[in-house]
Amino acid sequence: MNDEYYMAQALRLAEQGLWTTDPNPRVGCVLVKDEQIVGQGWHQRAGEGHAEVNALNDAGDAARGATAYVTLEPCCIHGRTPPCTDALIKAGVARVVTAMQDPNPQVIGNGIKQLQAAGIEVKTGVLQADAEKLNPGFISRMCKGRPYVRCKLAMSLDGRTAMKSGESYWITGEAARRDAQSLRARSSAIMTGVGTVLTDNPSMNVRPGELPEHFSIPENLRQPLRIVVDHHLSLPADAKLLGLPGQTLVVTASDDPESQADLKAAGAEVLYLPAKEGGIDLAALCQLLGDQEINELHLECGANLAGAMLRAKLIDELVLYVAPVLMGDSARGLFHLPGLELMAERIPLKIADMRAVGQDWRVTVTFPEE
Amino acid sequence: MNDEYYMAQALRLAEQGLWTTDPNPRVGCVLVKDEQIVGQGWHQRAGEGHAEVNALNDAGDAARGATAYVTLEPCCIHGRTPPCTDALIKAGVARVVTAMQDPNPQVIGNGIKQLQAAGIEVKTGVLQADAEKLNPGFISRMCKGRPYVRCKLAMSLDGRTAMKSGESYWITGEAARRDAQSLRARSSAIMTGVGTVLTDNPSMNVRPGELPEHFSIPENLRQPLRIVVDHHLSLPADAKLLGLPGQTLVVTASDDPESQADLKAAGAEVLYLPAKEGGIDLAALCQLLGDQEINELHLECGANLAGAMLRAKLIDELVLYVAPVLMGDSARGLFHLPGLELMAERIPLKIADMRAVGQDWRVTVTFPEE
Repeated sequence: MNDEYYMAQALRLAEQGLWTTDPNPRVGCVLVKDEQIVGQGWHQRAGEGHAEVNALNDAGDAARGATAYVTLEPCCIHGRTPPCTDALIKAGVARVVTAMQDPNPQVIGNGIKQLQAAGIEVKTGVLQADAEKLNPGFISRMCKGRPYVRCKLAMSLDGRTAMKSGESYWITGEAARRDAQSLRARSSAIMTGVGTVLTDNPSMNVRPGELPEHFSIPENLRQPLRIVVDHHLSLPADAKLLGLPGQTLVVTASDDPESQADLKAAGAEVLYLPAKEGGIDLAALCQLLGDQEINELHLECGANLAGAMLRAKLIDELVLYVAPVLMGDSARGLFHLPGLELMAERIPLKIADMRAVGQDWRVTVTFPEE
Repeated sequence: MNDEYYMAQALRLAEQGLWTTDPNPRVGCVLVKDEQIVGQGWHQRAGEGHAEVNALNDAGDAARGATAYVTLEPCCIHGRTPPCTDALIKAGVARVVTAMQDPNPQVIGNGIKQLQAAGIEVKTGVLQADAEKLNPGFISRMCKGRPYVRCKLAMSLDGRTAMKSGESYWITGEAARRDAQSLRARSSAIMTGVGTVLTDNPSMNVRPGELPEHFSIPENLRQPLRIVVDHHLSLPADAKLLGLPGQTLVVTASDDPESQADLKAAGAEVLYLPAKEGGIDLAALCQLLGDQEINELHLECGANLAGAMLRAKLIDELVLYVAPVLMGDSARGLFHLPGLELMAERIPLKIADMRAVGQDWRVTVTFPEE
């Protein structure tokens, strides 16, 4: 079997940590000797063993002389656990194959150099694109200092996300809504605007019973941080999401002490950001969220916040669930984009994936590099 | 080989007439004896030989004792040519397999009965769904008295078909535009609203040089009838489409003799229909077009006419070319549907086909039966 074969196994192991490793990256490791898998491991939770160490423990003495397939460059720094490079060298691994370099500036390339200095043969970049897809948030945070932002929208085939009144339950079918729950579960935070809260009073949480049935759900499923963008602090203290397990962060440009106190009393954390151009400074907010180790930010909101995030070039991926219905031209659009008036100014997209989800279609879209 | 195999051959022959048989249906015929194809034919143009007769001529004496695979029940009436049932009986064909009955009320089932009365074994309904797709217009005209209406729209992924100003060149890429030309070429008529003519001054014709490259284009390509829905006769006499080869029909609720005379002088035919509920009576128009042997009506227009046709339940199929761009929420929607305000009133669709066409996506949609 070739290197790609074993790396694919390591990637499948890494995927097991999709909902639990946060804020750490998802990493898998397979140890192979004489065409036999002698050990495997994946990173489960921050503070617990890294994938390499779990695989080495699984292999025991069999690790000596083996090839280690790791989906991310092994770390060479003391974090919450000792460096993996030391463990691989100590175990007598003969060869290391990685899918990608660790984008962490404290590591990038140094883990590989340490292994090579110890006489270990290293090969990198095997199934790199697949490995990157597992950790877009970690990579974005390391490279840009901000989370990877995924905007989820449900729409009719004629591009409408709610009726004129705001009514929107339900545009898509159950399969699409379950699929969207899995996007929430992999995210570090779920962000919406106060308008959506006032209209729908949503929970903005992960509900294990509503996840797709083919996923195995870990115990003590982590609740992503809930973020409400609320310029004027109009979020009512009895909003449903404030009473649910997990943390809520209210981001505001209002320094009104009374409103802030009410929300804090209701359990929210309040973040004051000075207004910029009449609105919340979304770029500054995203940088702050990056500092707080938010990897993937799940955006689920109305046309105003979605449009503002888009104009600020803060959205990395759109996931559109398209229902086979028409809602008509008085219904609400996806992105409020004032000033976009000429065909030459339209925003180009790149369709990354399109597939049926139940009776609906899921279209995954990225933005071409400029 | 089984009956489906030979019927598939006959369907491929029928397809050759997609752009030429109008107003007749597209029909193909294969004659098979001892597992050998001994004759084949397809209907090319109204007034010329039917598929069966062309296949019998191709086979000569070999037709005796053969099985005839015909995509449509053979006709038993004298039209522009003699009945095909007589020709099949006279040639000594032993068995006839058809894909579907002829929906023509003068024929339906009678052709089959005549063959059976002559001692010929008949089987029907082989690959019926495929055969029906070849002639949706002919079937609609025979069953409902009106054309099959196909509405073509180009849209951004956020459901917009033009900027606020009306600017819309070009939303989609060249491959999609070529594909749309092939939809025009198979239609009996192309209909638009006067608003689109005033904004874009379009040609609304079939341009051989812009058809997809994999089609073989027949000589003397037929130009579909152009229809402009023009309530108040505001179509200028120098509109580009009036000067092009082919006929233009202007449908109006205005009886102003001067405007009518101007347009007639410019080469248009003018059809006066009394206004109904403040607009053109679209249902009456479609019945009249059915009477004039219009099979497939290609609708390519703005949100007002598209919305009115949709509300009148006169659209059978939507073909949406979706470009991977965002145009924003001030741009124009697909269907103007006043009064659609509740989720419960949204219009359900059935996605029949979705595929990539160049950089864009083509979504073909029908309406579930009520």
